[in-house]
Amino acid sequence: MSIALADVEAARRAIAGHVVDSPMLAAPKLSALTEASVFVKYENLQVTNSFKERGAFNKLISLSSAQRGRGIIAMSAGNHAQAVAYHARRLGIPATIVMPLTTPFVKIEATRGYGGEVVLEGETIAEAQVRAEAIARERGLTWVHPYDDDLVMAGQGTIALEMLEEIPELDMLVLPVGGGGLIAGNAVAARALKPSIEVIGAEAALYPSMWNAVHGDHRPIGGPTLAEGIAVRNVGKLALPIVRQLVSEIILVDETHLERAVNAYLTLQKTMAEGAGAAGLAAMLVRPERFHGRKVGLVLGGGNIDPRILASIMVRELEREERIVSFRLTIPDRPGVLGQIATRLGQLGANILGVDHRRLFLDVPAKGARLDVTVETRDRAHGEEILSALAIEGYQPARIEAATTME
Amino acid sequence: MSIALADVEAARRAIAGHVVDSPMLAAPKLSALTEASVFVKYENLQVTNSFKERGAFNKLISLSSAQRGRGIIAMSAGNHAQAVAYHARRLGIPATIVMPLTTPFVKIEATRGYGGEVVLEGETIAEAQVRAEAIARERGLTWVHPYDDDLVMAGQGTIALEMLEEIPELDMLVLPVGGGGLIAGNAVAARALKPSIEVIGAEAALYPSMWNAVHGDHRPIGGPTLAEGIAVRNVGKLALPIVRQLVSEIILVDETHLERAVNAYLTLQKTMAEGAGAAGLAAMLVRPERFHGRKVGLVLGGGNIDPRILASIMVRELEREERIVSFRLTIPDRPGVLGQIATRLGQLGANILGVDHRRLFLDVPAKGARLDVTVETRDRAHGEEILSALAIEGYQPARIEAATTME
Repeated sequence: MSIALADVEAARRAIAGHVVDSPMLAAPKLSALTEASVFVKYENLQVTNSFKERGAFNKLISLSSAQRGRGIIAMSAGNHAQAVAYHARRLGIPATIVMPLTTPFVKIEATRGYGGEVVLEGETIAEAQVRAEAIARERGLTWVHPYDDDLVMAGQGTIALEMLEEIPELDMLVLPVGGGGLIAGNAVAARALKPSIEVIGAEAALYPSMWNAVHGDHRPIGGPTLAEGIAVRNVGKLALPIVRQLVSEIILVDETHLERAVNAYLTLQKTMAEGAGAAGLAAMLVRPERFHGRKVGLVLGGGNIDPRILASIMVRELEREERIVSFRLTIPDRPGVLGQIATRLGQLGANILGVDHRRLFLDVPAKGARLDVTVETRDRAHGEEILSALAIEGYQPARIEAATTME
Repeated sequence: MSIALADVEAARRAIAGHVVDSPMLAAPKLSALTEASVFVKYENLQVTNSFKERGAFNKLISLSSAQRGRGIIAMSAGNHAQAVAYHARRLGIPATIVMPLTTPFVKIEATRGYGGEVVLEGETIAEAQVRAEAIARERGLTWVHPYDDDLVMAGQGTIALEMLEEIPELDMLVLPVGGGGLIAGNAVAARALKPSIEVIGAEAALYPSMWNAVHGDHRPIGGPTLAEGIAVRNVGKLALPIVRQLVSEIILVDETHLERAVNAYLTLQKTMAEGAGAAGLAAMLVRPERFHGRKVGLVLGGGNIDPRILASIMVRELEREERIVSFRLTIPDRPGVLGQIATRLGQLGANILGVDHRRLFLDVPAKGARLDVTVETRDRAHGEEILSALAIEGYQPARIEAATTME
């Protein structure tokens, strides 16, 4: 193993006063949901809203004045870019951030806003990487890797020091796994301080890179994931031996559970988690029996999620809970019928969100019309009640998938 | 004034270990937005997600064992209900919570979930209040008022003690104003500890009850507000003299600024604020020059906002920023045209969110069709670019208000 507790403790001294010692709070509602005793470390409250600042700062502060003068370079489409740009500016170090051409505009702007020089290169992360390495060589820039670097890993590991200082009774830490820097640093620190603690990784099922590396497996890697922050094809060479030795288990989390975890953080804890940031909670939802009755420390790694995607997740969850229900009625095509139905829905306590009324389709009788209605209900039972009432009254309601512009 | 610093200090000792000493953090992005130095006290991280627990607990713990045995009663459709129910159960005190018949189901369920006996009575808060007073008399229950009570005010005032302990340099505190309990308790504590500090209230412009009371004004009161938690018709008799003496100014906040403040907390601070909870930030957005260059402590009072409303706010903000744009095209009614336009939009980098294609309306030429398109853009300039390109190519684009099911 390339780092030890002393490296993480040194990182903690280095970052003190530069990176937020983020809140660590009991989460009673998540505890009720998971039947465990859950504590959350709110790394989304860092200035750039992710834990990446810890590793980035620990690396930057270690550079010689010659290295600082020449400047640094990083390749990232996400949180690492913002973390590096922000702390490089604070330290007066010129920063070049290479991002793929496909990077969302808001992330480019955020990185520029922190003073980074953004270079857009390559259709993919891999192409951007090649270009970034070329620029680094040409200009003599120091490379700041997002995870495969001992100083970066040691910086991320400071989270475990803070968590165990706050709640020494923790039985388990659950952390997102991408390249492995976060979990490796924290496993080193946590297991050295408390050998009995279990460290568990949560990896996106679509990107099981660490799973494959640890198990010698060959699961396919790729696809669109909500957890783009941990969608990594190659795990860190430095992290892998640490993970093998100190991590108890990698749990693969599917997209549905990632989505539910993001929603649970929002509705129960009133905090915004990005998909990767919520992976630890998602792992608890995937394998609840693994955590029952244990004291679990979750690292909410980051909160940088697109507002439109977040809005969509919230609405989809309401649909899943049947607090938003859509159904199709076939109604006689004569004046006044729409009014009758709308009035009836009001009496039933259904709040109408949308109506699509068409009479020009072949799939309804020539004298009929089709009415698609989306309503908000109090809960599942209320939705059933509304549909039963409409059925008894002869409107033949048929459930349809809610059609929101959000999806 | 009916309370003094000593009462708030006593409350702090009473609530220690029972109510979260919530995080108080610098908010650099809100500072950049407002050109002030902003610190946020995250009261939405309380177990029931609002500051109301402080006052409720301080009141409940003060009861005699005879009073505890008979039980307590409260009237609230919101955060006070959950705070009282939660801490009454923790202390083994039977709690009756009277809520108006119009209370959203989720709030009723949440209150029941904390062990409160919920009595639904009255179409309005006023009717519910009359019924609650009758029940209190009949059953000999102790009344726990949401604000017009010295112990409740002293409990809320503990926030200022924590804030000034964390950041003694604060120049101003900005707090939401409803009945006045929160601001009165905190004004007493803050001004006693630091006489030079300014305490400023943020009140919903639709419910200017404290404004009217302080200024002898008669602005109309009523209407649907995002800040239902501070939509109060009668201010506290105990709070009013304190507000008159210790509060520098009441700023009235309109609905648009409340909405923007909720959105800013979410997108910049990654945290969920309800309308009333975000009122302080809204006041900073309404009167920015009042706060420029000052060290401002904001109390984020609560995070209990309906997910559907929150999703709507997020989408509306994207529309306001023109990251979601809708427009109508009039196109020749022949096969292949929709495909051409969709392809062209793809080339322009517009992500299509929705299409409504109709050819059966009187307002388009007989040989034409109407196409309503909603696209996601990178930013305002990108939206302009897309519309210009379509205009040059003869599609006569006309902007329309985005029609989402969310609004």
